[in-house]
Amino acid sequence: MSCTASTPASTTVPGADYPRLEPDGRVTFRLLAPGAREVFLQPGGDDNGLGRGPVAMQRDGEGAWTATITPEVPGFHYYWFMVDGLAVNDPGSETFFGYGRPTSAIEVPEAADAAAYYRPQDVPHGEVRARWYYAASLGQWRRLFVYTPPNADATQQRYPVLYLQHGGGEDARGWPKQGHMSHILDNAIAAGEAVPMIVVMESGQVLTRRAGAGVPSISAMDENAAVFGRLLIADTIPMIDATYRTLAQREQRAMAGLSMGGMETLYIGLRHLETFASLGVFSGSPLQTVDLARDYDGALADAAAFNAKMRLLWLGAGTAEPMGLERTLRFHEQLNGVGIAHQLWLSEGTAHEWLTWRRHLREFVRVVFH
Amino acid sequence: MSCTASTPASTTVPGADYPRLEPDGRVTFRLLAPGAREVFLQPGGDDNGLGRGPVAMQRDGEGAWTATITPEVPGFHYYWFMVDGLAVNDPGSETFFGYGRPTSAIEVPEAADAAAYYRPQDVPHGEVRARWYYAASLGQWRRLFVYTPPNADATQQRYPVLYLQHGGGEDARGWPKQGHMSHILDNAIAAGEAVPMIVVMESGQVLTRRAGAGVPSISAMDENAAVFGRLLIADTIPMIDATYRTLAQREQRAMAGLSMGGMETLYIGLRHLETFASLGVFSGSPLQTVDLARDYDGALADAAAFNAKMRLLWLGAGTAEPMGLERTLRFHEQLNGVGIAHQLWLSEGTAHEWLTWRRHLREFVRVVFH
Repeated sequence: MSCTASTPASTTVPGADYPRLEPDGRVTFRLLAPGAREVFLQPGGDDNGLGRGPVAMQRDGEGAWTATITPEVPGFHYYWFMVDGLAVNDPGSETFFGYGRPTSAIEVPEAADAAAYYRPQDVPHGEVRARWYYAASLGQWRRLFVYTPPNADATQQRYPVLYLQHGGGEDARGWPKQGHMSHILDNAIAAGEAVPMIVVMESGQVLTRRAGAGVPSISAMDENAAVFGRLLIADTIPMIDATYRTLAQREQRAMAGLSMGGMETLYIGLRHLETFASLGVFSGSPLQTVDLARDYDGALADAAAFNAKMRLLWLGAGTAEPMGLERTLRFHEQLNGVGIAHQLWLSEGTAHEWLTWRRHLREFVRVVFH
Repeated sequence: MSCTASTPASTTVPGADYPRLEPDGRVTFRLLAPGAREVFLQPGGDDNGLGRGPVAMQRDGEGAWTATITPEVPGFHYYWFMVDGLAVNDPGSETFFGYGRPTSAIEVPEAADAAAYYRPQDVPHGEVRARWYYAASLGQWRRLFVYTPPNADATQQRYPVLYLQHGGGEDARGWPKQGHMSHILDNAIAAGEAVPMIVVMESGQVLTRRAGAGVPSISAMDENAAVFGRLLIADTIPMIDATYRTLAQREQRAMAGLSMGGMETLYIGLRHLETFASLGVFSGSPLQTVDLARDYDGALADAAAFNAKMRLLWLGAGTAEPMGLERTLRFHEQLNGVGIAHQLWLSEGTAHEWLTWRRHLREFVRVVFH
């Protein structure tokens, strides 16, 4: 009997049978490609938790190529197929903007109760609003996303604002789509764990980066962060404060981001303490040991002055992302060494992917603006 | 000298060189696939205006496959590549949900001045808001999009509501993304051509349809439309009227849609004249001659009664979509034959694609609710 209790993944497009989740936690990928000579499953990086690749797929008599694997850890894992050397998205998967282009991904879920915080619940819902504005610093029309908390239109209440960044190769769609951020905020606000807040999500890759290219150099990331910082300070934040009912003081303004977005948060936030009083760094701690006296224009040089000024400096990583964990712990120890106040939170058993960052966001909104 | 004035298309992902638009109107597609034996460019259907396919692509010494074609007409054209028989999206293209899955597309622009109405301009901007709600009729949490007009939060004004549907194989993302609907509304409202209105966009394919499958049968579309109609009437419209400042009378409520969405508009709208007083059918006129006495539960049987009840029945097609044009003109003549009042508007030189439907939306909002 061929029927099983396996189900298509939540990231599988409606009406497609694969990718499929098996009850025992394995995942089956399948591609119908009778004309192909060899097909591999390629996880999106060694630290994203799907497992090491490439994985050879097996051909059946009809030309369907299949691989069944046990993911290292649950989470949201980017992947693609290599078909005779060509990187191909899975036609059975929704695409997500990553790696500078639309990319397949599979959601390998946690236990249902553990995942409830990023799923829709019977609570008041906020909205994620697409807004267009003209950015004079770049001379271009841009679209960003603004999460507004439940019933924001029904009151005259003003809200603190979190500027929340995606990772390298992604764009402003990451947090609403891959991150399920609206459910995380709705649920945390309904539980009384988070202060109702506005969350602004812009695309942080403002200098053109080669599509499909690998990780950029530190200098290329810094150059981009400088231009993005000017955009935020000169255009984005003034527009947001003029358009939404915000609390427009630094104490009520935070910035956070994941991976490259965490590095942008440090690059921009530490240079603009007149603008931000709270910073969150999700798997985005510095790649190298920081020169505390000189880096970030000396923002970290005087621990007492820094502590007096900051409301929150928050660092996170997943325990199953070796590189991200290592640099987070190194930065944590560096900050401890000079007495710079901060919080550290590690996501148990998750990798360099969105499940780690959903948890980071949940934890961060529990402490920011309190 | 290899430099030309050609540019990547607006649908090309940032940092990718192809697809490219040549100054003379030609389009060059390119795929690096050294391991492939044959590659074709496949337009998304014979009537979408890109041209007849498949088009054989030529391999160069590095294994890059190229095709340069002159599109039949401008517009938004879905396409993909066939690589040794496998349908593959273009890694250089943004993807758009069509054909039941993410699909490549290229925007072949009109003259810049002709395209201004669907591009961001220096006018007040509305928002497209993602909203989650529980649909009891389907027992599921659903996300839809709500366009709210500029400054909707700043006044106590109430607005008429247009329920606007995508086509077959697409979903609620179609109008905001492929259709650029927010710019069309913003610009028409700013020009005083359109009444400020709320526009609701739900996913109209509620029964699971085989991913990547072709056009469904009429009976399958009708079965789906019946379930979608129950969702709209029982869940969506009450939620919208309870959540947004709407004018909640039939005279201030319209439904419109493109292609399959136009057929849904007729299927649902004509059976619910107590709910809708205005209907728009964009390239979605009936596939067959209508039995005016019996079809749509007899809604069209009594022309005088129908005319007294309806504020607007609007039909559109593109002159470069032979099948869509033929059935639109046939329905138009049928309605004329019995004296059913309606408007007909043809988009000159556009095909069965989103440029036709952007123009339809622009024209429709100029007359609806007036």
